[in-house]
Amino acid sequence: MNDLITLHPEAQALLFTDARTANTFTDEPVSDAQLRTIHELAKYPPTAANTQPLRVLYVRDGEPRERLLTHMNEGNRAKTATAPVVAVLAADTDFHEFVPRVFPIRPQMRDALAEDPAGREQMARFNATLQIGYWLLAVRAAGLAAGPMGGFDAAGVDKEFFADSSWQSLLVVNIGKPGPDAWFPRLPRLDYDEVVRHA
Amino acid sequence: MNDLITLHPEAQALLFTDARTANTFTDEPVSDAQLRTIHELAKYPPTAANTQPLRVLYVRDGEPRERLLTHMNEGNRAKTATAPVVAVLAADTDFHEFVPRVFPIRPQMRDALAEDPAGREQMARFNATLQIGYWLLAVRAAGLAAGPMGGFDAAGVDKEFFADSSWQSLLVVNIGKPGPDAWFPRLPRLDYDEVVRHA
Repeated sequence: MNDLITLHPEAQALLFTDARTANTFTDEPVSDAQLRTIHELAKYPPTAANTQPLRVLYVRDGEPRERLLTHMNEGNRAKTATAPVVAVLAADTDFHEFVPRVFPIRPQMRDALAEDPAGREQMARFNATLQIGYWLLAVRAAGLAAGPMGGFDAAGVDKEFFADSSWQSLLVVNIGKPGPDAWFPRLPRLDYDEVVRHA
Repeated sequence: MNDLITLHPEAQALLFTDARTANTFTDEPVSDAQLRTIHELAKYPPTAANTQPLRVLYVRDGEPRERLLTHMNEGNRAKTATAPVVAVLAADTDFHEFVPRVFPIRPQMRDALAEDPAGREQMARFNATLQIGYWLLAVRAAGLAAGPMGGFDAAGVDKEFFADSSWQSLLVVNIGKPGPDAWFPRLPRLDYDEVVRHA
């Protein structure tokens, strides 16, 4: 027990210390209400100028799942086929259209961003990735396990699902209740002195 | 109250619903033990192949703080001058050196990454940004407020502090206890139906 941590020990365990990436899932369905719940938490932590560029495509069973599987690396295919729901997390490069509403103190930022597609793409991908960090912990807060996977063909997924939109896929995440042998032993984490310096 | 959320309501408030980005701070110091505590939580959530490329430079008062201030956008300078401690969050593009220890099931990944500096940089920046999401919530879990700022000269900071290293700065974050008038009213968040699609 570290008494410098304000967060309750049960919450520490749920979100950080005991939570694990799941590789198998039970048949227990994930409801639309549970997916809305994830958003109710994940929407709050900060993004640059409150731009919130993260977008989520939820893929349930059937033909869309089959199409998604063709773009997953082979090692990720079996678990992506059996998870109750799969999330494709993406950055919306047209996030600037929302600026007048989400950042009303500087609505003219929309027009400046409209003229800078390269800067907009960079800003969208950075802030959406930050939001994925929040989102993964929100999945755990909703009592679900997440299985994030970078091993997929992003260009293929974008063509398959986002051809008519400004979304760019960043990560694919299986969601559900952990099944049998859902995880391997935890891998080592780097020590404080390996990742932190003091100036 | 949403009974689909497993996370205790006090923890929801601390990390998500009531937490705010702080723009002013009290004089109360942040101890090294508190900074270690942030790492004890932030180190756990997942990264690709457990690579953990996030690095943190903590800047306290004095000459290093003065040097940092010269690279902050003018609007961020006053708050960065007065926060008890400032974190420069960075991606380590030489993260692959740790692969044999942190991903022992595939130690040869180190050599493959050694030959792909461009892929390594992309992987470092993406996974470190994901970890910043975890890290910001860990700051809150430690009972502190964070004030993340994208408005700084990243190339200038890298030259000033990381010239002899493989670190690339991504975000600067003030940390401390919120001071008087620490925040503006909360800005609007996008609705579920604006950011989510179902396939």
